[in-house]
Amino acid sequence: MEGRQCYDLLVIGGGSGGLACAKEAAQLGKKVAVVDYVEPSPRGTRWGLGGTCVNVGCIPKKLMHQAALLGGMIHDASHYGWKVAQPPHDWGKMAEAVQNHVKSLNWGHRVQLQDRKVKYFNFKASFVNPHMVCGVSKGGEETLLSADHIVIATGGRPRYPTHIEGALEYGITSDDIFWLKESPGKTLVVGASYVALECAGFLTGLGLDTTVMIRSVPLRAFDQQMASLVTEHMAVHGTRILRGCTPLRVERLSDGRLQVIWVDLASDKKDTGTFDTVLWAVGRVPETRGLNLEKAGVRTNPNTQKILVDAQEATSVPHIYAIGDVAEGRPELTPTAIMAGRLLAQRLCSRSSDLMDYDNVPTTVFTPLEYGCVGLSEEEAVARHGEERVEVYHAYYKPLEFVVPERDASQCYIKMVCLREPPQLVLGLHFLGPNAGEVTQGFALGIKCGASYQHVMRTVGIHPTCAEEVAKLRISKRSGLDPTVTGC
Amino acid sequence: MEGRQCYDLLVIGGGSGGLACAKEAAQLGKKVAVVDYVEPSPRGTRWGLGGTCVNVGCIPKKLMHQAALLGGMIHDASHYGWKVAQPPHDWGKMAEAVQNHVKSLNWGHRVQLQDRKVKYFNFKASFVNPHMVCGVSKGGEETLLSADHIVIATGGRPRYPTHIEGALEYGITSDDIFWLKESPGKTLVVGASYVALECAGFLTGLGLDTTVMIRSVPLRAFDQQMASLVTEHMAVHGTRILRGCTPLRVERLSDGRLQVIWVDLASDKKDTGTFDTVLWAVGRVPETRGLNLEKAGVRTNPNTQKILVDAQEATSVPHIYAIGDVAEGRPELTPTAIMAGRLLAQRLCSRSSDLMDYDNVPTTVFTPLEYGCVGLSEEEAVARHGEERVEVYHAYYKPLEFVVPERDASQCYIKMVCLREPPQLVLGLHFLGPNAGEVTQGFALGIKCGASYQHVMRTVGIHPTCAEEVAKLRISKRSGLDPTVTGC
Repeated sequence: MEGRQCYDLLVIGGGSGGLACAKEAAQLGKKVAVVDYVEPSPRGTRWGLGGTCVNVGCIPKKLMHQAALLGGMIHDASHYGWKVAQPPHDWGKMAEAVQNHVKSLNWGHRVQLQDRKVKYFNFKASFVNPHMVCGVSKGGEETLLSADHIVIATGGRPRYPTHIEGALEYGITSDDIFWLKESPGKTLVVGASYVALECAGFLTGLGLDTTVMIRSVPLRAFDQQMASLVTEHMAVHGTRILRGCTPLRVERLSDGRLQVIWVDLASDKKDTGTFDTVLWAVGRVPETRGLNLEKAGVRTNPNTQKILVDAQEATSVPHIYAIGDVAEGRPELTPTAIMAGRLLAQRLCSRSSDLMDYDNVPTTVFTPLEYGCVGLSEEEAVARHGEERVEVYHAYYKPLEFVVPERDASQCYIKMVCLREPPQLVLGLHFLGPNAGEVTQGFALGIKCGASYQHVMRTVGIHPTCAEEVAKLRISKRSGLDPTVTGC
Repeated sequence: MEGRQCYDLLVIGGGSGGLACAKEAAQLGKKVAVVDYVEPSPRGTRWGLGGTCVNVGCIPKKLMHQAALLGGMIHDASHYGWKVAQPPHDWGKMAEAVQNHVKSLNWGHRVQLQDRKVKYFNFKASFVNPHMVCGVSKGGEETLLSADHIVIATGGRPRYPTHIEGALEYGITSDDIFWLKESPGKTLVVGASYVALECAGFLTGLGLDTTVMIRSVPLRAFDQQMASLVTEHMAVHGTRILRGCTPLRVERLSDGRLQVIWVDLASDKKDTGTFDTVLWAVGRVPETRGLNLEKAGVRTNPNTQKILVDAQEATSVPHIYAIGDVAEGRPELTPTAIMAGRLLAQRLCSRSSDLMDYDNVPTTVFTPLEYGCVGLSEEEAVARHGEERVEVYHAYYKPLEFVVPERDASQCYIKMVCLREPPQLVLGLHFLGPNAGEVTQGFALGIKCGASYQHVMRTVGIHPTCAEEVAKLRISKRSGLDPTVTGC
């Protein structure tokens, strides 16, 4: 065991939240170390610094989503006069380009830590006591690190349904899909999370035979009308969706393919399918095991294994904090982890007393038709305020760009959830359509500024865009009028 | 002359503003007529109901812009694994699709007027006296129409530089380009307006040899740093830009091509080029001639020929109003004309006393790299508040989607103009990048709600998007720090 090293701040976990916190604290003059270690996935996939978002999340996901969208664009292009036929897709070429970009980001994070004089250790960390962490290197060497403040930002990893025979042996997860060198082929995606739908969406878009198996409801945490439209769009555009089914067993056939046996929960009938790849997207597990949290006295929720935190991001031990996906009750989103990490660093350095505001955090699901939202779902609004006090404005609209290629716009839909009483404060906005992330961001600022329906109606549209449809939402659900936008 | 017809409201001009005003008033119970007549362009191009936006503006422009973008997407696609080579483009196929959509919109407007019981006359209108208009049909028949209130919404038409020999004879304008059945071929676009740059942009993107000739500064009414970046991007991506030049003469060569002789204003040297098409985009003229405004007593600005209006949209004659491009000092934008028309109808029907607010109107220039903006330019902010009281936050960013195809992002730039004093009210936002219209719309709501820099900084980003870069603007111009966004 090497000599003990002391820091003002020790961050465990080199993902979005941890790195943001470490860099901010270092910039404000603290002596900071980051300890990060990526346990390879059960399939052996490994990656570098940067955490889930960079390596096995947002970044490769968005790039593969873009690859899939471009397939649709080529189809559109032929209608717009380009003499092009739908070409085949080369997974290997795409994957290599995506992986190269991820590797460049890994490198960028290393450089940024160096530039800001943050000490980086490629160690697996576990608590020795409330102020001391033991780091174990790949080679098994141990180093003791102590710090005045410790931030846990270890995130989470995909959950394997280990009760399903063959699941661990033959399946992969989102930890692997982006690092495959060859096409996954015919794929079964199991799960109802946004990860499941996003993966199934881009696989379908890349021309692969793709099935999603959903046990109960998709996108449970989201507005359910929007969730239905998202899956409806996917089903219409080639993703096979099996509802109310759950896998029982995965077997490898003699030809190397995977046979999945599942049960339809309503009829209790069994069915079978053969796939090249089975992708589990059935939730994520916080990375708290192995940290020896009990040695530090850090409390977790026994049901979720997530670390209990207060508004200051402090755990049950006042000088130990937790941010990002590992913390109980936090949205599992990169930008919230980053902002929480940065604000925490500022508080630790007495630069500010601002707390992270977890309300009205916008997000976007990058399914083939993107779904952006901010604020309350219709269900949440009704539950909080009562149906009589809520007014929902909505519209089915047709993106101008869809007209020439005669794209179906049946699921292009916007809904704004407001208080009914003037000036009708906006509680939530839900946008389903192209570029939903780009559209939703600015409206999130509006809602942060207390936008009312009156403000929205007084905002001039930008023509022709999809976003302007938000500023034209005149039909309330209560009116019962047809919300289909007609004309120009 | 047929018998006189009486209406509560007579709208002259069936474009965005006129139709919106007519439909709103009819829905509120007024007896309404719309008089619309499209004088064919000098090249003989004619079109249906709906005005500039639908027929020779926003709609066909955005569709041809989209066609051009799709060419770039095909190039991107090959980097994302699609086995596709850059195909040739068929102008005729694109144009037919665009024109068919425009015709369907013409029809839709007719149906909407009928549904709302608005009487439509395909008449050329001129005032007989302050309450009476004479409508002349195509066949020369005259009808007298009188109304309690009259709204002039005749818009404008492209200006021909009639002092340039051959300009009218051989040139076309934006009234023609969208209706060409065959490719315009090698094109000279003359002008520095957004119309000029947008047309040159999509022509270049469709693979045509395109030159823009600019006499002085491009996009004069816009933030000049942004304008420079817009033209810089175009120049890098294949549009030839001739600065400080003006045409002297256009001649037709024996092979049918057009020879243009121009002068470089700095050196006074003449130069010559041969083109298939010369497109004038040197501004627009309000459609006030022919209205016999003097018979009604409606005053115009003798310099601009535009109709003088007050905050109520009333002209010098209290019961005669003017909205949209024909009115002095109004932004020439479809959504402002629509909102102004609708609010005017509501006031005329005593439903509301709300005036149109022409401040903080967002807009987007659909050049190959789109430029969205709302609020003040940096120059305007400095002029109004003084340099010491203005803080400008800015960033050069790289859209994630650009990485794989190695697209150059040198001109992807965002600038937020704020008051310097906390909480640093946002005065203007300028966004140059993909989907700028979609990005800018929501921020326009934020600014309408009084967004400050503090609000922006507390808004969580949506990752990975371009729009989130707005919520990450941390570098002020005053700091002198490098505003290039690095890393994730």
